[in-house]
Amino acid sequence: MIKQKGLLIVMSGPSGVGKGTVCKEYLSQNDNIAFSVSVTTRAPRPGETDGVEYFFRTEEEFINMRDNNGFLEHAYVHGKYYGTPRDVIEKRCAQGLDTLLDIDVQGALQVKKAMPDAVLVFLLPPSMQELEHRLRSRGTESEENVLIRLGNAVKELSFAKDYDYLIVNDTVKDSVERLSAIITAEHCRADKCEITK
Amino acid sequence: MIKQKGLLIVMSGPSGVGKGTVCKEYLSQNDNIAFSVSVTTRAPRPGETDGVEYFFRTEEEFINMRDNNGFLEHAYVHGKYYGTPRDVIEKRCAQGLDTLLDIDVQGALQVKKAMPDAVLVFLLPPSMQELEHRLRSRGTESEENVLIRLGNAVKELSFAKDYDYLIVNDTVKDSVERLSAIITAEHCRADKCEITK
Repeated sequence: MIKQKGLLIVMSGPSGVGKGTVCKEYLSQNDNIAFSVSVTTRAPRPGETDGVEYFFRTEEEFINMRDNNGFLEHAYVHGKYYGTPRDVIEKRCAQGLDTLLDIDVQGALQVKKAMPDAVLVFLLPPSMQELEHRLRSRGTESEENVLIRLGNAVKELSFAKDYDYLIVNDTVKDSVERLSAIITAEHCRADKCEITK
Repeated sequence: MIKQKGLLIVMSGPSGVGKGTVCKEYLSQNDNIAFSVSVTTRAPRPGETDGVEYFFRTEEEFINMRDNNGFLEHAYVHGKYYGTPRDVIEKRCAQGLDTLLDIDVQGALQVKKAMPDAVLVFLLPPSMQELEHRLRSRGTESEENVLIRLGNAVKELSFAKDYDYLIVNDTVKDSVERLSAIITAEHCRADKCEITK
């Protein structure tokens, strides 16, 4: 009775909130969704494989892709290019398959402009105190880095209202259930369905 | 980190599609939601209790409520008034509690105008053949009635695109799961949340 396209689900949130864990857990429970692999001009690190962690490309190849509207968003960070390839995601959508993209706030808002049907989900910490606790308990961040990340978090939170959905990451289990509900609900949205006879 | 209001979930669909069963099953599984009881001027039938099946009111009381903006929608059918009372639902929303309303297409669209935050869900049959089968297998409908209801269904389906969500009622279990996902997702919508510190 209804026909649907696949969805692009964009997940953002401040550093330390637990985005990676929630995405990984959701992907492990669902077969119909793939993780979007970014394109970069940085060199592969030992153990990294082309097409798994990143698509590794030369600067010339990247700029060529960019100039041919090949990215939903791209950024230049510390002398290297990073981008979200458009064709893989559009092909999956046309086939009715979903894609999950884990990206920073600036990138997410660029993606929404390039692809207004993208579903933007912002993962919030239960509180700023809890975010600080999570960043410190990683044990890998210097005091300076913790403060920088907390400062960024405050800025990033001010964009949460531009997102489609907010999830407070109290527990991974609850957040995965909410993400799952959001994706199921988005597949039922009348403006994303075509009624057939 | 976020504060939310309760939701009004409005469920419609053609006669015979299985709205009542899906609503009843969802309500039996969830405590945080109440079924909206309508106001009517028709007399109670044996066994009906005021405030359970309907709020039974005199015509004068009904008109007084109506003229005081007391209804989200109302209709006059076969010489009797029917209406969805506004205050009960608005109070529940303010308390963060959800309300489920089972209503025809015309009523649902009136409710959306009176309360734009209401979430409209349209329950579709898997096919028109299946709807016909479900209507006939009730065994309570005359041939004439079956044809009238099928004709109405065609008209009603043309309004499905004005709804927020569509659910194809393949099985009650799947439809209840989708309804549940929609309600969870709507509680995560950024435009329905207030971010607190």
